[in-house]
Amino acid sequence: MLSRNIETFIGCESEYDEASIVIFGAPFDSTTSFRPGTRFASRVMRSESFGMETFSPYQDKDLTDYNIFDGGDLELAFGNSRRALDDIGDFARSVLADGKLPLMIGGEHLVTLGTVEAVFEKHPDLHIIHFDAHADLRADYLGETLSHASVIRRCNELIGDGKIYQFGIRSGDREEFNYAKEGHTTMRRFDFVGLSEVVASLKGLPVYFTIDLDVLDTSVFPGTGTQEAGGVTFNKLINAILLVSDLNIVGCDINELSPSLDQSGASTAVALKVLRELLLSLCK
Amino acid sequence: MLSRNIETFIGCESEYDEASIVIFGAPFDSTTSFRPGTRFASRVMRSESFGMETFSPYQDKDLTDYNIFDGGDLELAFGNSRRALDDIGDFARSVLADGKLPLMIGGEHLVTLGTVEAVFEKHPDLHIIHFDAHADLRADYLGETLSHASVIRRCNELIGDGKIYQFGIRSGDREEFNYAKEGHTTMRRFDFVGLSEVVASLKGLPVYFTIDLDVLDTSVFPGTGTQEAGGVTFNKLINAILLVSDLNIVGCDINELSPSLDQSGASTAVALKVLRELLLSLCK
Amino acid sequence: MLSRNIETFIGCESEYDEASIVIFGAPFDSTTSFRPGTRFASRVMRSESFGMETFSPYQDKDLTDYNIFDGGDLELAFGNSRRALDDIGDFARSVLADGKLPLMIGGEHLVTLGTVEAVFEKHPDLHIIHFDAHADLRADYLGETLSHASVIRRCNELIGDGKIYQFGIRSGDREEFNYAKEGHTTMRRFDFVGLSEVVASLKGLPVYFTIDLDVLDTSVFPGTGTQEAGGVTFNKLINAILLVSDLNIVGCDINELSPSLDQSGASTAVALKVLRELLLSLCK
Amino acid sequence: MLSRNIETFIGCESEYDEASIVIFGAPFDSTTSFRPGTRFASRVMRSESFGMETFSPYQDKDLTDYNIFDGGDLELAFGNSRRALDDIGDFARSVLADGKLPLMIGGEHLVTLGTVEAVFEKHPDLHIIHFDAHADLRADYLGETLSHASVIRRCNELIGDGKIYQFGIRSGDREEFNYAKEGHTTMRRFDFVGLSEVVASLKGLPVYFTIDLDVLDTSVFPGTGTQEAGGVTFNKLINAILLVSDLNIVGCDINELSPSLDQSGASTAVALKVLRELLLSLCK
Amino acid sequence: MLSRNIETFIGCESEYDEASIVIFGAPFDSTTSFRPGTRFASRVMRSESFGMETFSPYQDKDLTDYNIFDGGDLELAFGNSRRALDDIGDFARSVLADGKLPLMIGGEHLVTLGTVEAVFEKHPDLHIIHFDAHADLRADYLGETLSHASVIRRCNELIGDGKIYQFGIRSGDREEFNYAKEGHTTMRRFDFVGLSEVVASLKGLPVYFTIDLDVLDTSVFPGTGTQEAGGVTFNKLINAILLVSDLNIVGCDINELSPSLDQSGASTAVALKVLRELLLSLCK
Amino acid sequence: MLSRNIETFIGCESEYDEASIVIFGAPFDSTTSFRPGTRFASRVMRSESFGMETFSPYQDKDLTDYNIFDGGDLELAFGNSRRALDDIGDFARSVLADGKLPLMIGGEHLVTLGTVEAVFEKHPDLHIIHFDAHADLRADYLGETLSHASVIRRCNELIGDGKIYQFGIRSGDREEFNYAKEGHTTMRRFDFVGLSEVVASLKGLPVYFTIDLDVLDTSVFPGTGTQEAGGVTFNKLINAILLVSDLNIVGCDINELSPSLDQSGASTAVALKVLRELLLSLCK
Repeated sequence: MLSRNIETFIGCESEYDEASIVIFGAPFDSTTSFRPGTRFASRVMRSESFGMETFSPYQDKDLTDYNIFDGGDLELAFGNSRRALDDIGDFARSVLADGKLPLMIGGEHLVTLGTVEAVFEKHPDLHIIHFDAHADLRADYLGETLSHASVIRRCNELIGDGKIYQFGIRSGDREEFNYAKEGHTTMRRFDFVGLSEVVASLKGLPVYFTIDLDVLDTSVFPGTGTQEAGGVTFNKLINAILLVSDLNIVGCDINELSPSLDQSGASTAVALKVLRELLLSLCK
Repeated sequence: MLSRNIETFIGCESEYDEASIVIFGAPFDSTTSFRPGTRFASRVMRSESFGMETFSPYQDKDLTDYNIFDGGDLELAFGNSRRALDDIGDFARSVLADGKLPLMIGGEHLVTLGTVEAVFEKHPDLHIIHFDAHADLRADYLGETLSHASVIRRCNELIGDGKIYQFGIRSGDREEFNYAKEGHTTMRRFDFVGLSEVVASLKGLPVYFTIDLDVLDTSVFPGTGTQEAGGVTFNKLINAILLVSDLNIVGCDINELSPSLDQSGASTAVALKVLRELLLSLCK
Repeated sequence: MLSRNIETFIGCESEYDEASIVIFGAPFDSTTSFRPGTRFASRVMRSESFGMETFSPYQDKDLTDYNIFDGGDLELAFGNSRRALDDIGDFARSVLADGKLPLMIGGEHLVTLGTVEAVFEKHPDLHIIHFDAHADLRADYLGETLSHASVIRRCNELIGDGKIYQFGIRSGDREEFNYAKEGHTTMRRFDFVGLSEVVASLKGLPVYFTIDLDVLDTSVFPGTGTQEAGGVTFNKLINAILLVSDLNIVGCDINELSPSLDQSGASTAVALKVLRELLLSLCK
Repeated sequence: MLSRNIETFIGCESEYDEASIVIFGAPFDSTTSFRPGTRFASRVMRSESFGMETFSPYQDKDLTDYNIFDGGDLELAFGNSRRALDDIGDFARSVLADGKLPLMIGGEHLVTLGTVEAVFEKHPDLHIIHFDAHADLRADYLGETLSHASVIRRCNELIGDGKIYQFGIRSGDREEFNYAKEGHTTMRRFDFVGLSEVVASLKGLPVYFTIDLDVLDTSVFPGTGTQEAGGVTFNKLINAILLVSDLNIVGCDINELSPSLDQSGASTAVALKVLRELLLSLCK
Repeated sequence: MLSRNIETFIGCESEYDEASIVIFGAPFDSTTSFRPGTRFASRVMRSESFGMETFSPYQDKDLTDYNIFDGGDLELAFGNSRRALDDIGDFARSVLADGKLPLMIGGEHLVTLGTVEAVFEKHPDLHIIHFDAHADLRADYLGETLSHASVIRRCNELIGDGKIYQFGIRSGDREEFNYAKEGHTTMRRFDFVGLSEVVASLKGLPVYFTIDLDVLDTSVFPGTGTQEAGGVTFNKLINAILLVSDLNIVGCDINELSPSLDQSGASTAVALKVLRELLLSLCK
Repeated sequence: MLSRNIETFIGCESEYDEASIVIFGAPFDSTTSFRPGTRFASRVMRSESFGMETFSPYQDKDLTDYNIFDGGDLELAFGNSRRALDDIGDFARSVLADGKLPLMIGGEHLVTLGTVEAVFEKHPDLHIIHFDAHADLRADYLGETLSHASVIRRCNELIGDGKIYQFGIRSGDREEFNYAKEGHTTMRRFDFVGLSEVVASLKGLPVYFTIDLDVLDTSVFPGTGTQEAGGVTFNKLINAILLVSDLNIVGCDINELSPSLDQSGASTAVALKVLRELLLSLCK
């Protein structure tokens, strides 16, 4: 007898019980202030993943050698940010309770807050490594405190000062850059210089790793809502990911792909490679 | 001395004081459940309007002969539907207080509720004529009561049963069609048959007129988020608008253009023609 | 415990055993002579189907009231037409053996031959109703006898003269039109005139129903590889489908959507509506 | 020995000496006031023509049965309208001198003036039948008298009042409509009503036939720079062309396809069908 | 009372009298020989600018701290190059007469000539720094001397030999490269090597600075009509701009963005960042 | 008398007899496993080539100084790989028999096998230099041995072990990388390190040079069916080509451009530059 159509990220076909990593999509973009569309990222990435090899020539490892479960996409109501974050948090909590690592595919960057809230409950000494073009440190955006432009500020308020390390930042208003200078976060503009020192200093500590893909240069990754020239290359991002994966990663996400903005599909292909390398780097 | 760059819909260059009609944009699409993007409608329409003639060969009238003011776009926070509706309502209220007719350009259809709330305060015996592919009569959408899929239901609850006339409807769940059958609204599926009778029956009463452009067939208007085949032609829509404009229109809107979904620009051109004919039909 | 991500056409979530209809995709376009891309049709339709209502205002029926199983997409090798057809035939044979109705989503039109071969084994008195812009009656295409441009010719050779009824045809070379005139098939150009008589004459006989979506006008359905102006409207196609569904349909397919050619998504939305109405018309 | 790569419109492979019709492209769009791009029309149409059948099911005729020569595209300097028109006129003159019928593919509509000037020299009693969405009767456009928006005005001034018959017009400023009302031209708005009477009255007279493809509805033909809703269907246009072709056509053109505005390619496919039917209707 | 809708480049909201820099658009592309479309650059950039931050992390400066006036777009007739250049020159002259710095947004590169003519009247010892992929040194293009491909040749004839410094050049015919070798201009191929020496040598002299954005690599900036691989990165361009801004800049422009060629919007985002950094570097 | 429209790659207008290099297109993509469309590469490149200069600032050479013949595109049946390869081989054989160098424009990479078979007959000691993102070393793809993913494996089986040098490889399954490690081919991952040594070792030997353009980074070349991040820059590829052209090249090809995937046209422009530099480097 045939079973109903199953579709997972390629190489992520493990059953839940056997899996050490759980991928899930958080298709939410209600607070996006410029071009929306990241809600389709996880769906399109999953669908396009069958065009990607499971083997990495960077790490000489293969996804099919590991146990990864694809939980599909959460069903999130648009227009109610707090409820969406709660639903995300609930899912992450259950994954964490089962001793598995949650890897979320956004969605706009605000979704990070939902998973971070869940992870922080389990790991009160949480640190965050944040790759992004944008500081995401606004107090609010047109009065809304739950906004993609404020998500790291909210995380900072949650986990405390000095625990967030930002890399690749090249856009924000003056107040955001000042907020970092005041010591709330540690911010590196434009690139990953200093990352290995940060990694060395965080050895053993629980780390949440959030990658806003617009940290990549717009030439590499035009498929995102707010494009910022002057970003890093794909190879630099992969190297930085391999560096970070040495740490005790207790939760992570990739976000801000907006597939329809890049009709060539190249941005989706890039996001999938980043996902593959991140997954393999987390599989010990 | 040069003044700063002014950009209005073509032919809508009147000063506020002289104007009898006030156009404004409501760029909001946070509750869109499928493809977002209607937030860009008013901006793109305004910009593209310089490619349209101000003269109508349908009505032998010219926009430049009337006084229409373009109030620009409201600045609405994404991710907070209630606040966006309140901001819309406040603007409409001030326009109404000055004795002018508000004509709103959406945005998703939910924005209609903001203006209807303002108009209803002034006209307690308000009726609504609603052109749309979708019934928009859901009790809620994934638990959210403020949703583009529920907006006419909310209007119905606000102004009372039997006062809403829906035309062109060809999509909805079974409950929505049943809701109409139960008499809450008067619904005509697929086309405008019966419209002239409705217009005759509403003579003299205050009427809000809301046009969801997806009432048009997808061949005519592919540039919308949730496309429904089997709609009306452009000529049928224009004729219906001319019919309705005989009534005592006290507020109106056009919504659901999502310009980037139709890269040819044809959907935007269609929306602009609808706007021109609606404006001219309202100018007596 | 969570189960792996299941993705089906909306409203087609039945288990195989309970189902009376089995949908499956045949993603093959190797012989397409102009613009390829129909291989992505079933995948994209399935993914986009969550934006469609399960309720039909045309038939007042709902997909969720019936038992339809989605078998996913076959894995077909590109570049070997005969093997692809055999794999399609094998799947259809097993569905037929279980007493269920196969409904295939192409792919290019050649895939029809695979299912027809399977159906013909079970129903030697098979007749075919064929909606298309193209005659598909070529002896061969650049020497290849297995070609999308020859598929109805192959079907004709298989099931015999006088058993195929073609409607909407408006493109072909002179020989194809002559081939029909010689009586091999019954061909109606441009529209569906005469369809009800054909349906009346076929009552009780086993009928295979194949719909090349390019029978629709290019304005309605630009998303196909070889676009032919002058086709039928959506409403005419739906009416024709409802007419045909009175017959003893023993197999059917919808084909030639090429989603990436219509970036608005409107063609996919149209294809989904056609699928919904076809499914519901087959559910008694 | 191999000869260099020859590319012609499909079915237009005759040598010049044997041909009765000469097709040529006039890739010019310098005065386009909104979206340029018609310069690519002839090139793209020629390239895409290999996807079209040479046989017409409308006329039961085949391009391969007639002698049509494809002269390629003229090389026209951008930014100098008068010189471009002179180069067009020179080419048309040589075609006319050889007793052949020139059929020009625009380009923007201004190119019509170049060929009309040449044809008028040979046929001083020239009449013009003009299908278009736009009146093209402006005195000038921002001071330029050689403009796509003025081309029929210029033709009128050249050949005299009362000799131009316009159909399908649905856009222009008030002065253009008044200009027609004053009797300079005979204008029919929106459709082809009255065409058969005009054709009857012009029997035997030399007629130039110019088709601006935007006379088609935007649903059928979005691929044009200034899109006007409310146009005619493909079938109505074909019927009108067949009607006109009974006349003594001494020159003709098709213009205003802007292929990149319709990435589906459907507009180009429509233009090619119009060209095929026009060509076949001219082949007696 | 409400005022009509004002739209300016973000952060350029100063009144004219207070401004030291005046931005204006020159939407002209009539002589473009390949793909037109740069006429939309200033309009689209202005509209998209609301998605950009006014603060620069490169210079730690903010547009809102300076007085910049946005004069909107000039209304230029298409198809008459000389008149368009005169209109541009007139505007630039009035800006210069008021002691302000003109910053023009093209349009095709030919528009540079209009502003250079105005600037040269005021500064007879004018020098030009020219960033571009193309030499733009043709004597003429198909006979037209006013062409985007000849603009620097015309500037050279106007201001004299040895006063133009070209960087990044990687396309042209042999004669153009020879023309530079003969000493008419100083040309650096491919990159900015030698720029700091040039800047040192020009200290104190009046300099016009013209940036054809296609100096950027096509990966960074695909949204331009004639794309040339092998260009510079965004960071290299920004560094070069900061270097040049030390000079006595008396006029400048950015040109050749063709927004619709890059539907992701990334090229427009890049152009806006270049504009922001150029503006801030000019604000002392 | 006018001759029929001739269209060749710009600068490739030589007669066959005088030519030393023969360009031809092999428009075939039937075995493409992901996104098809490379069949349009040669056609679109030829058409767009008129926007490219014939002069190279990299080599200070001009295409118009050499004799290159453009043989147009082969007419290849889709869906029959063996026959397509035979037709390609026959054409290449006749070119080789006339003492000319064949330069093929794909199409998918499988077409390489057709020309290699022809070249190998003439040069039994053939070596191959292969630039690609993909190893193309699969034994078969879903059972098909003639596949774009197996083409270098087939070449290896034809010409023997140790004679193929692969550069830039960054995608494949584990078996492909192992196959190379076993010594069948010499594979360099990611870049061109070691190329000069390989070139030195092959001096005087007959070499076939095949360039899959997806060796370029996706930022430079998104217009290809299976996009792999992390590739080389345009400048690195040009330098590598200049290095290889010192060898005794007896056949070569460029393949895997899929023009419609990059609607900006930038990928086609890149492919044309690669073609120009390759051609000029082969012209001694």
